[in-house]
Amino acid sequence: MRHAYAVILAGGSGERFWPLSTKARPKQFISFFGGRPLLALAVERLRGLIPTDRIFIVTAGHLVENTAQAAWHVPRANIIGEPCKRDTAPAVAVACGLVRQRDPEGVVCILTADQLMGDAEAFRMTLADAIKVAGREEVIVTIGIKPDAAATGFGYIEAGDVLETGTATLFAAAKKFVEKPDACTAARYVESGNYYWNAGMFIWKTGTMRNALAEHTPELARLCDAVTGAASPGELDALLRQAYPPLRAISIDYAVMEHAGNIVVARGSFGWDDVGSWTALAGHFSADAEGNVVIGSCEQIDSQNNIVMSENRLTALVGVRGLVVVQSENATLVCPRERAEEVKKLLRRIAERPDGAKYV
Amino acid sequence: MRHAYAVILAGGSGERFWPLSTKARPKQFISFFGGRPLLALAVERLRGLIPTDRIFIVTAGHLVENTAQAAWHVPRANIIGEPCKRDTAPAVAVACGLVRQRDPEGVVCILTADQLMGDAEAFRMTLADAIKVAGREEVIVTIGIKPDAAATGFGYIEAGDVLETGTATLFAAAKKFVEKPDACTAARYVESGNYYWNAGMFIWKTGTMRNALAEHTPELARLCDAVTGAASPGELDALLRQAYPPLRAISIDYAVMEHAGNIVVARGSFGWDDVGSWTALAGHFSADAEGNVVIGSCEQIDSQNNIVMSENRLTALVGVRGLVVVQSENATLVCPRERAEEVKKLLRRIAERPDGAKYV
Repeated sequence: MRHAYAVILAGGSGERFWPLSTKARPKQFISFFGGRPLLALAVERLRGLIPTDRIFIVTAGHLVENTAQAAWHVPRANIIGEPCKRDTAPAVAVACGLVRQRDPEGVVCILTADQLMGDAEAFRMTLADAIKVAGREEVIVTIGIKPDAAATGFGYIEAGDVLETGTATLFAAAKKFVEKPDACTAARYVESGNYYWNAGMFIWKTGTMRNALAEHTPELARLCDAVTGAASPGELDALLRQAYPPLRAISIDYAVMEHAGNIVVARGSFGWDDVGSWTALAGHFSADAEGNVVIGSCEQIDSQNNIVMSENRLTALVGVRGLVVVQSENATLVCPRERAEEVKKLLRRIAERPDGAKYV
Repeated sequence: MRHAYAVILAGGSGERFWPLSTKARPKQFISFFGGRPLLALAVERLRGLIPTDRIFIVTAGHLVENTAQAAWHVPRANIIGEPCKRDTAPAVAVACGLVRQRDPEGVVCILTADQLMGDAEAFRMTLADAIKVAGREEVIVTIGIKPDAAATGFGYIEAGDVLETGTATLFAAAKKFVEKPDACTAARYVESGNYYWNAGMFIWKTGTMRNALAEHTPELARLCDAVTGAASPGELDALLRQAYPPLRAISIDYAVMEHAGNIVVARGSFGWDDVGSWTALAGHFSADAEGNVVIGSCEQIDSQNNIVMSENRLTALVGVRGLVVVQSENATLVCPRERAEEVKKLLRRIAERPDGAKYV
């Protein structure tokens, strides 16, 4: 029986939940739920399936300390800081190299730090089945989420024939990875029943990973091999500092998934949400009688359908509707729910202020 | 020539500018203008007319330290803390007693801590004339503000015949003090040309004050006499602690001005504003091209006619209109401009929270 390893990709720019999330504290560090950061939840939900010493976390260099704090179960040596941001493919290559060094027969689960699984038990069962199939075959297993809305914020995976795997989870050949669609296309996808959300989770043997990298992005296969050869944490660190800057930023989807032929989709249904917006977040909380979702302290008069996030502070509303009001340590955002996307534009302006670094 | 004294009444509940003002920091301590608290401005604008050792400040007991800090020119012994809130009449009686002790011939100017005079020089000239007239005659001089709008938030003074006083300021007999009118009545007042805003400023000899108190509120004349007789600050303090609790709360307007026959109005025109609301405050600042008045740091996208007050923090707005957004150390208020009055109701709710004391 092969051992399973988890590699949690924990980069994140902290834009969508500004001012609560910042560059120094991206989404995975925010404690939306029960006082536990999303990253801690991501580690905890592997309990019973993957021991913590087989969990790796790849994050930005400046986030290593915060990461070690939030994921304190994970050995410090398993937390790797990238010297610069190069999207997910280089991180996957590093992860592959690390696990190969430890266990050339290992099965690696690439997971994310900032998503939510409503039903952790169902998630573990799906992941266990995916590990079984990926350990047995020369395939890349991806977990596809059965869509419950025509979302335009995710990539989709078109599934083909159902495969017989002898597991409780439904597996199908993946026909195609497609980018974020427009609303009309998304509706068609959902109606067809053959499309799944691409949740960015991939399960494969290190050998399969190494082969896929060699075939589609040889420079990342070389990075993977170099990581496998690093004799110490110091050597690894020096290697990454040297290797990263010239790499192009590319996602694992673009680098591998859109080209690989040996991908299978494991159908997942465990209340997955990438919690990509204030509205998505609000969906996980019950609203008061007037439709307000409040996280933290709030008093209001005649105010409806607002989303209030008040960290260690009080938010007071009188006669406002449909707003997102978020208070952090040193900034407050006020924005209609439907315009929360524009915060990115605002952030660029704030970054240009003389005192901007204090806020973003 | 009689000496002039100023007594600045600096109580204040800090409700209208919540969360920027609080019980511990009422309006007079807020630095709206050029980094100087309103109270400091109230002291400074007497420069050249009344020396600081002849300025007294009557405030709430718990505000004495803050008051001494904001008005550091004023001798500490001249700052009197009231043991409990009893409106303005008892404070005036205490002030009268204090000045009589120091100088039985003194002329006392009762002034306020939290109003704004756009033209300090014109204010000083009016006050100098008022001191002259009050020192010469057995009258209570009040400064009436020529109204420039049918405000319903102030009391009015009806003026009668113009008096010949030989000063540059126009004086008239006061016929009647009237309470805050409704909009219709206010419009009639303004149109008549005979009504002035009651700005709560009274100038009178200590003897005139003492007589008025004796005639209209004998218990406050007794308080005044007891204060005059207090031999030390400690004795004064003990006296106030004993005398205040049984007093009824009553304003000097109700206690004296509505009954006294010897009141004259000095017509004042020096850009007076009691800065009673966020909208009034905003009127003292220039708006940006989109009508936003910003005090502090703010970035916005497509937002118009908002009033933003951001103390040591950043406020970020996207697509909102006509809001008051105020951030203080530990709370944020979001409210349409026209509903700012309702903050009082909100404050009562906040006070009932288990952690309410932290915020009000």
